[in-house]
Amino acid sequence: MKTIAVTMGDAAGIGPEIIAGAWEQFQMMPDCRIVVYGHPEIMRRAAVLRKTNAEIDCLTCCASDILEVPSGVIDARSGHAAYSVILRAIDDAKKNVVDAVVTAPIHKAALHWAGYSYPGHTEIFAEQCGIENYAMMLYLGAGENLGGQYGLAVVHVTLHTAMKTIFEQITVESVLAKIRLADGFMRRIIGQNNRLPRIGICSLNPHAGEGGLFGDEEIRIIQPAIKQAATEGLQVEGPKPADTIMLDARDGKYDAVVAMFHDQGHIALKLLGMYRAVNITLGLPIVRTSVAHGTAFDKAWQGTAETGSLLEAVRVAVKLCR
Amino acid sequence: MKTIAVTMGDAAGIGPEIIAGAWEQFQMMPDCRIVVYGHPEIMRRAAVLRKTNAEIDCLTCCASDILEVPSGVIDARSGHAAYSVILRAIDDAKKNVVDAVVTAPIHKAALHWAGYSYPGHTEIFAEQCGIENYAMMLYLGAGENLGGQYGLAVVHVTLHTAMKTIFEQITVESVLAKIRLADGFMRRIIGQNNRLPRIGICSLNPHAGEGGLFGDEEIRIIQPAIKQAATEGLQVEGPKPADTIMLDARDGKYDAVVAMFHDQGHIALKLLGMYRAVNITLGLPIVRTSVAHGTAFDKAWQGTAETGSLLEAVRVAVKLCR
Repeated sequence: MKTIAVTMGDAAGIGPEIIAGAWEQFQMMPDCRIVVYGHPEIMRRAAVLRKTNAEIDCLTCCASDILEVPSGVIDARSGHAAYSVILRAIDDAKKNVVDAVVTAPIHKAALHWAGYSYPGHTEIFAEQCGIENYAMMLYLGAGENLGGQYGLAVVHVTLHTAMKTIFEQITVESVLAKIRLADGFMRRIIGQNNRLPRIGICSLNPHAGEGGLFGDEEIRIIQPAIKQAATEGLQVEGPKPADTIMLDARDGKYDAVVAMFHDQGHIALKLLGMYRAVNITLGLPIVRTSVAHGTAFDKAWQGTAETGSLLEAVRVAVKLCR
Repeated sequence: MKTIAVTMGDAAGIGPEIIAGAWEQFQMMPDCRIVVYGHPEIMRRAAVLRKTNAEIDCLTCCASDILEVPSGVIDARSGHAAYSVILRAIDDAKKNVVDAVVTAPIHKAALHWAGYSYPGHTEIFAEQCGIENYAMMLYLGAGENLGGQYGLAVVHVTLHTAMKTIFEQITVESVLAKIRLADGFMRRIIGQNNRLPRIGICSLNPHAGEGGLFGDEEIRIIQPAIKQAATEGLQVEGPKPADTIMLDARDGKYDAVVAMFHDQGHIALKLLGMYRAVNITLGLPIVRTSVAHGTAFDKAWQGTAETGSLLEAVRVAVKLCR
């Protein structure tokens, strides 16, 4: 039985209500116990909104001034509360009080107004764990629209950067590092005594460069990285055009895809399962997964926000704890 | 009643069998008559393969040496035949003997072995029509996976070019030209006395550049082009992140999308309707549409090739004839 801390996220966003909306399904998961890290009164209001009679198990880890914050607005009080909650969850995970942390979305500007300048959760986790090498991965569990038995992981070689700057970041080393990460993650999902993960590597250029006609990064960089990965015993294929790879990945031919830039991965993942995708931080000493969406201030506290990504984030966290 | 010439394509590929497979559905289309341009014996064999009893109306426009070409191989004889067939169809369209030309796939290497060095159909059509300014558009008709009533058109600002070279090709003028093309095409599909086409324009950079943090092409180039299009009365929105635009387009918010590079459009279109997408050449004095797939030599003459793209190409051609 694993204990999972689910952080409440920004109280003005959809975090509290997706937790309340998922609560009854959390109770039916046989191998884990969920504790919400946040504020019990916020969670009570969210339970009323989602018409849940169940009592939500919530640890108070922030001040009560967030009770006055209106929904859907940027407020320093909710930024401060969100930060306190995350810190407490990380601390408890480091002390093994909980086995994993699953995070609901926070708002970057609210965090900033509260005096904490981080691009997002990931950097707070890395700092608190004293880690410099970490990576973000997107994962879509097996299910609707996906042929693969073990779901689909997508790792990006470049991500939040101008397209003009991706060329200097795509190197044999960086491509190889992401192939190894994708492989390592999917080995944990597939299990030790099973087959190897099958990894598809996207080309950078259209039609994989048409033999050098549309760019030579495939020949100079991506092919050597794949060759090295194959030498290490990894089951790799590519570089292939991203539009072909994503179609094959949907049909179950690959367990993981290495994308060269943001849009290659995100266009496919959003079309395949916008509300089921999970964000995973690799390289930390603790297990952390997250919903792949934001605070959605425009839809907050209306009781309609989708719970799929949160449920999947908890399921993946439980798997990674083993 | 419109007469549509459907060219047979490379006889060693899936062209003949998709025509035979679609034949009975062609007969049920109330507003058009189909004539195959190719070789009657090849079409008879394809009809047997697809178990069609109907007699396929086929005009002989190539030599009989293609009857000896094995399936699934590159052969100069089928390249030569494919070229002869296309020339005859273009000539008949120019003389108004037919109202439109719909092309089945040809093989670039077979064409080359026969002595004709063209990257594809489009360049042959342009040359025969004496046209220098033309553009390729992908179109997915209304149906499965699409919320929009009029389908979805995708135009690329850059296409078959190395990613490193797209930055010099993305200019205010080129973006504006593609917005106008998308608008003009969708006006013909939606009809004169109806609403205006809604056009979504993708950003180049992730998150639309995050206000200049991840690149400034949105601010310098794409926004001014959109502003100019709006001044001309076009219903435009953007630049927005491509992953968001494609999801909204799927849900029917846009009738057309302008993509900045190959993968933005192709990843989405292939996931949304691999077997239904149609390729359309804009700027010609004659109507020409095409299947969006290739000869698929590995699957040819097995009787299993999907007919959806060809049926859709004929439907769109009939619409464009009006």
